[in-house]
Amino acid sequence: MKEKALVLLSGGMDSSVCLLIAKKEYKFDIFALTFDYGQRHRIEVEKAKEIAKKYSAKKHFIIELPLSKIGGSALTDKNIEVPEGKINRNEIPLTYVPARNIIFLSYATAIAEVNEIYNIFIGINYIDYSGYPDCRPEFIEAFEKMINLGTKSGVEGKKFKIYTPLIKMTKKEIVLKGKELGLDFKLTHSCYNPDENGNPCGKCDSCLLRLKGFKEAGIEPVL
Amino acid sequence: MKEKALVLLSGGMDSSVCLLIAKKEYKFDIFALTFDYGQRHRIEVEKAKEIAKKYSAKKHFIIELPLSKIGGSALTDKNIEVPEGKINRNEIPLTYVPARNIIFLSYATAIAEVNEIYNIFIGINYIDYSGYPDCRPEFIEAFEKMINLGTKSGVEGKKFKIYTPLIKMTKKEIVLKGKELGLDFKLTHSCYNPDENGNPCGKCDSCLLRLKGFKEAGIEPVL
Repeated sequence: MKEKALVLLSGGMDSSVCLLIAKKEYKFDIFALTFDYGQRHRIEVEKAKEIAKKYSAKKHFIIELPLSKIGGSALTDKNIEVPEGKINRNEIPLTYVPARNIIFLSYATAIAEVNEIYNIFIGINYIDYSGYPDCRPEFIEAFEKMINLGTKSGVEGKKFKIYTPLIKMTKKEIVLKGKELGLDFKLTHSCYNPDENGNPCGKCDSCLLRLKGFKEAGIEPVL
Repeated sequence: MKEKALVLLSGGMDSSVCLLIAKKEYKFDIFALTFDYGQRHRIEVEKAKEIAKKYSAKKHFIIELPLSKIGGSALTDKNIEVPEGKINRNEIPLTYVPARNIIFLSYATAIAEVNEIYNIFIGINYIDYSGYPDCRPEFIEAFEKMINLGTKSGVEGKKFKIYTPLIKMTKKEIVLKGKELGLDFKLTHSCYNPDENGNPCGKCDSCLLRLKGFKEAGIEPVL
């Protein structure tokens, strides 16, 4: 029997590549986890469902989280505008959602523990990471240590491991890895600020990074 | 101007004593945070509102969290019975909610960050702790380290500190501290399995611990 992995699947390109790595390179049985957290780009959730189905996830957990009540980010707070047109690597952007990955990984830990899954995959990225502190390797290391101290499974010796296979990849490398593993790019969505039909804006940080990745990989862009 | 503290307030005796310590001993301005997580003992949430009001919290955040969807605990899963009548210090009990304090503290971090609060109080207890791994000091230490690596505030040098003033206190000491600080015990609720009117069962782990605390403190018990 295959070992199980829980993959955080946003519906974006990165988490989809991450899912295919867990499935095709690590040969894990895939359990997908998606959060519906009041994001502007909720089309992601629908995309995630299609992706989980297409790549044969054994189960797809969808959890509604009231992050919009916390506020403080352009991604969840309608009073803050999504910035356009520049990627500034020297400051933490307005699209930073306070403690988002901390909350996501905490839920993932709970769901993993209940379902006896000890491998957790998250497609975060340190190189083209847009300045989010919760995408850094030292954060992930500290998180893994914390859950192995704070859960029944961890204390009883079934250690959780957090995998971040994309953490040191450039967007170009992520695009190439997706192509290698047969990812259907048109199923994935990256835009922070889509129109009412779910079409990407082509202008936000996330769209710009995605376009840059395709361009550098020498592949026709799929936004 | 006073410094601010965010206090996790369940409505139970321990978190209420913790709030009074933050307020009267540390002299912080109090912001309370309560989770409505589908617990069997939801009367707690109403008690928490009264306590926050009585002790002049500047703001009371109440967050609905879908922990019951995760399952795996007698406290949130109606298919698992709340155990009665014995406290076994050698095993993790059925009332363990997977990763509960991890999720609670993650939300607390997000709310603290948005509201520029860098002191977080949680009334967990290591001595009479009923066997929960996420009540141990080494867990809290690892959690504090993790959030200071994974948040904008932490990275920018405004370090979060997690206070656990009750962590090494016995229930007796907690009762005595509550009395010393003027806690109105009848406002607090501890029972895991109250009847439909919110009356405590007197039989669950939590009721037994509370009764033991009052008895040892030589104070007339208030269940």
